[in-house]
Amino acid sequence: MSSVLPKSIRALAEVLGSLPGIGPKTANRLTFYLLGREIAELERFAQAFSELKKNLVTCSSCHIIAENDPCPICSDDSRDRQKLAVVEEALDVIALEKARFNGLYHVLGGQISPINHIGPEDLTIAQLLDRLRQHDFKEVILATDPSLEGEATALYIDEQIRAAIESGAIKKLTVTRLARGLPVGGDLEYADELTLSRALEGRSSYSQKDQ
Amino acid sequence: MSSVLPKSIRALAEVLGSLPGIGPKTANRLTFYLLGREIAELERFAQAFSELKKNLVTCSSCHIIAENDPCPICSDDSRDRQKLAVVEEALDVIALEKARFNGLYHVLGGQISPINHIGPEDLTIAQLLDRLRQHDFKEVILATDPSLEGEATALYIDEQIRAAIESGAIKKLTVTRLARGLPVGGDLEYADELTLSRALEGRSSYSQKDQ
Repeated sequence: MSSVLPKSIRALAEVLGSLPGIGPKTANRLTFYLLGREIAELERFAQAFSELKKNLVTCSSCHIIAENDPCPICSDDSRDRQKLAVVEEALDVIALEKARFNGLYHVLGGQISPINHIGPEDLTIAQLLDRLRQHDFKEVILATDPSLEGEATALYIDEQIRAAIESGAIKKLTVTRLARGLPVGGDLEYADELTLSRALEGRSSYSQKDQ
Repeated sequence: MSSVLPKSIRALAEVLGSLPGIGPKTANRLTFYLLGREIAELERFAQAFSELKKNLVTCSSCHIIAENDPCPICSDDSRDRQKLAVVEEALDVIALEKARFNGLYHVLGGQISPINHIGPEDLTIAQLLDRLRQHDFKEVILATDPSLEGEATALYIDEQIRAAIESGAIKKLTVTRLARGLPVGGDLEYADELTLSRALEGRSSYSQKDQ
């Protein structure tokens, strides 16, 4: 931001502009918006930033970030403890919670990505296999991203689980993955060909729909 | 954000989501990005918010927000003190500074907008006329937004200045406004018809171009 402006304004515009997806113009606009707010509100922002990482732990069971270990989900007895959704990150947990998934989770901490030097050992895959060994799950839902790397991660985990079942280390269970198809509310003509071909493969008879 | 997450994470996502143009999903994504940053960096954010409005004054001459009164622009003797750009807000000053305008500014504090109950008396128009009375400017550039309300504001100010010149309260000076036309680097076929018709009206002979 132009040096004609006060240092405090430039300082805020600079930190805001360092956030992903926020360019210098948006940072300036947000800063001037905030200049118009009450000091008490700015203090609420300051406090939220300052306290973000205080008293946070990683749940030793599902590896989500939480205030207590075990986390509220892992310690909630009303949940279906036979279903385990394997996700890449905590944001995916929020998405599945909104979709009313009621089982347990396992947060991998990312996806296998040779380009970014992230191998299976950098994720919580060993911990997942341990967990499947120690607790009886009926179904593991591989809910990784529907991207190339997400698919590869799911495939790798699927292989590891199958091998562990064959060797007898893990009891027999079903491994599933989320359906691919047309997004609800979407426009068929805008669907990419891969999504559309997956939607064709996974088509269901009309009477089964929405059951 | 889902209540399964720690309060501190929800608190930051909530304040970020209260910013204009940042929806709940972006707020969540930013919060999780920030979770991955160092505590020292989060403290820099906290400080920037907390100190934003400390030691700020409004320049009594141009009405920009500044650390000192008069502001660095008004007290800079190397600038062209005969040209005055009238703008709506401080962000417009930044834009004109980038475009290398080297005169002085007058910040109106908004635009005349009957829908939002903002009349001429809510802006620094009386102060502008005072300033023109007390100091000799050769040119006043009405650099309001090229929108309906910005145009109306410029028109109103133009009338006030002309009346003051006729009555002898203000010395004769030129009132101009920024050119309308095709944005540089733009695509002619995407220009709206109003911009294109203004570009036609304001066309210049080829030899004058870029002079």
